[in-house]
Amino acid sequence: MGQNYKIIVEYDGSNYSGWQIQKNTKQTIQQKLEDALTKINKGRVQVTGAGRTDAGVHAAGQSANFFLDVEIPVNKIPIALNTELPADIICKKAEKVEQDFHARYDSRGKKYRYRILNSNFNSVFVRNFVYNVYKKLDLEIMQKAAEHFEGCHDFASFCAAGSSVDSTVREINSLDLYAADNNEIWIDVIGNGFLYNMIRILAGTLIETGLGKRTLFELEYILQSCDRNNAGFTAPAQGLTLIEVFYD
Amino acid sequence: MGQNYKIIVEYDGSNYSGWQIQKNTKQTIQQKLEDALTKINKGRVQVTGAGRTDAGVHAAGQSANFFLDVEIPVNKIPIALNTELPADIICKKAEKVEQDFHARYDSRGKKYRYRILNSNFNSVFVRNFVYNVYKKLDLEIMQKAAEHFEGCHDFASFCAAGSSVDSTVREINSLDLYAADNNEIWIDVIGNGFLYNMIRILAGTLIETGLGKRTLFELEYILQSCDRNNAGFTAPAQGLTLIEVFYD
Repeated sequence: MGQNYKIIVEYDGSNYSGWQIQKNTKQTIQQKLEDALTKINKGRVQVTGAGRTDAGVHAAGQSANFFLDVEIPVNKIPIALNTELPADIICKKAEKVEQDFHARYDSRGKKYRYRILNSNFNSVFVRNFVYNVYKKLDLEIMQKAAEHFEGCHDFASFCAAGSSVDSTVREINSLDLYAADNNEIWIDVIGNGFLYNMIRILAGTLIETGLGKRTLFELEYILQSCDRNNAGFTAPAQGLTLIEVFYD
Repeated sequence: MGQNYKIIVEYDGSNYSGWQIQKNTKQTIQQKLEDALTKINKGRVQVTGAGRTDAGVHAAGQSANFFLDVEIPVNKIPIALNTELPADIICKKAEKVEQDFHARYDSRGKKYRYRILNSNFNSVFVRNFVYNVYKKLDLEIMQKAAEHFEGCHDFASFCAAGSSVDSTVREINSLDLYAADNNEIWIDVIGNGFLYNMIRILAGTLIETGLGKRTLFELEYILQSCDRNNAGFTAPAQGLTLIEVFYD
């Protein structure tokens, strides 16, 4: 089955239907990676990603693994891949890993960032990577609100309706909400598993709190109600970036 | 002739043939602004820019002025304009100015930034706004090199061949070259007038110095020779951004 490799990939998800290969479109990150690797390998290559990012979601540090039959120096893999990949997908690093390494099963957690541009006007330099909120957000209230979600909770209220999962209990190891440069507010979330749309619904609920549409008092109730209808809107995919995947 | 307004405009120049209106294309910034303003004004509007940026060059703070016949609250102008403009051109500010204000003639200087991404790999997040130099640049040598160009000089060696100007003497008020976040090197240039491609040829020459292809000793000779053939390459347009236009 060849040598097992782990890569770190950065992508602008704007023009893709997400990570996962789909029947009705060729525009997925996994598809582009498999196509590029298949050319290099001269034989079909399957790529396993650490996590499936949704349509429009970006990555600064997605991880994936695959097996190659051809012998190729490991430091040449990013260069060879980037020659074949479109400009909005970049392999930043490759390393040889044990044959039983699995990008998803072996992951110990992930860090996501939701970027809000809190400004009267959007910015041409970051517009594809942020969600532009025109009205002034109350950062302090949002920071207090964010504290409600750290730790282990039943996040059923923050799971897209119609998802079927065994349990909606998840642990958020940390949720940091802070002012970044150029009028941005960043929400950094670390956990080892997230429900479908969970971070975007959390971001939407925090934004509504920052706009004064939600009170801090409400948030505890929203969590406890375990009802998606009580939480805020699903913030747009374009503001979300998978920053890093953690391994032992 | 209506009321005179000054606006500040940000744009991603990637998909444009530069600022200035041209006969063979509608894809210029000035054209898009005039089209948008003409809709708002319901009568032809001409826009005067502080400076003509080349094809592919960006702006964080281009200034322009124009006259409107319609009465419209000044704080509504950016909103009205942004509704009509494509997403890669954004009006950030508008103000009423004296009838004799002229965005170009009244300008006291401009600040440009050339962004180099000095990294093995490009970045999907900034790739349209930087020039990616793969090989390691020697920042200290580049900083020493940059000092040669501050002040008043004959910049004939740094002027695109074929340009016809009365004088090639220009004053650079400041030229700061420094390491920025995320492996970027920024070259900030302030002056009240630049020759055609001058900043991009300066950037190209500084990059060649940072790569060890030019010595500090050579630079003085390049300036004195007043010969374009002696200077470095013209760094790509996509790395250049007009940051600000100064007025009294």
